[in-house]
Amino acid sequence: MDLRDYVASIPDFPKKGIIFRDITPIIQNGDAFKEATRRLTEYAKAVGATVIAGPEARGFIFGCPVASELNIGFIPVRKPGKLPRAVLTEDYDLEYGKNTLCIHSDALKPTDKVLIIDDLLATGGTARAAAKLVEKAGAKVAGLAFVIELVDLKGRELLKGYNLLTLTQFEGE
Amino acid sequence: MDLRDYVASIPDFPKKGIIFRDITPIIQNGDAFKEATRRLTEYAKAVGATVIAGPEARGFIFGCPVASELNIGFIPVRKPGKLPRAVLTEDYDLEYGKNTLCIHSDALKPTDKVLIIDDLLATGGTARAAAKLVEKAGAKVAGLAFVIELVDLKGRELLKGYNLLTLTQFEGE
Repeated sequence: MDLRDYVASIPDFPKKGIIFRDITPIIQNGDAFKEATRRLTEYAKAVGATVIAGPEARGFIFGCPVASELNIGFIPVRKPGKLPRAVLTEDYDLEYGKNTLCIHSDALKPTDKVLIIDDLLATGGTARAAAKLVEKAGAKVAGLAFVIELVDLKGRELLKGYNLLTLTQFEGE
Repeated sequence: MDLRDYVASIPDFPKKGIIFRDITPIIQNGDAFKEATRRLTEYAKAVGATVIAGPEARGFIFGCPVASELNIGFIPVRKPGKLPRAVLTEDYDLEYGKNTLCIHSDALKPTDKVLIIDDLLATGGTARAAAKLVEKAGAKVAGLAFVIELVDLKGRELLKGYNLLTLTQFEGE
């Protein structure tokens, strides 16, 4: 099964000039969803992950099945104001402006090895901020895994030094 | 294992007078997360679900592991502007104002039996809107399942006629 066949490409979404890569056809198909989570779960085992973390909201879609399958915890990485208890925060730059990610302060132990899972690797800004949050909590980043890599945006370079898996790649199209 | 032991209660969040019931301690603990998804998966089988649907973002956390485990599709129920292709929409009333939920128009077939999964049953407004969306798409609601039920808010009454499972109940506290 080629998961690329289940990625929809939507021109000019969310704004003109952007081709949005949409993972909903993957998750809407039981076999494709299973194939994606199976490969992510294998990777989590290979890198020795003891915890899965995922940025809201599409990181929850792929990260939670892996955590549940492996009987390990899942740490939601959220925007400010969503997590009700004390949080650690990490700011990062966007093309225009800034964004902030949060995890609960008690979410991780120093012995945890965290696999960060998200749907899409674009510029890598969100992923790197999530990795920094894990390190700020004193835990180790076991790796990062994505269903789609937008190769032209070179997010991979921003994540140098970390273990990295991408299930599908799109470039120059 | 009593999942209630893994629900954190945060007074005055997100505003004064509200006790927020927080599921993050459940998902952060591998055994508790597994217990929750195992029970939801059993229920999905019992009601003959062929598809799981879940409202963003916490519905993804519990719904996606069940879909992946059963090798069936997951349909994200999202706020306006998040889904990139043609959508069906359903408006519903909040205490102040209105909210709108969307699913992709092609997400469901008339033969689908959909289990709607979310973290919390409060007044039931979101859940009923999700059920109406499923029916608008021509599919059948196999049931609704929640990790937490806030009994005092009587969401159960708004969902009369549907199969309903709640894993934990909180009232008058």
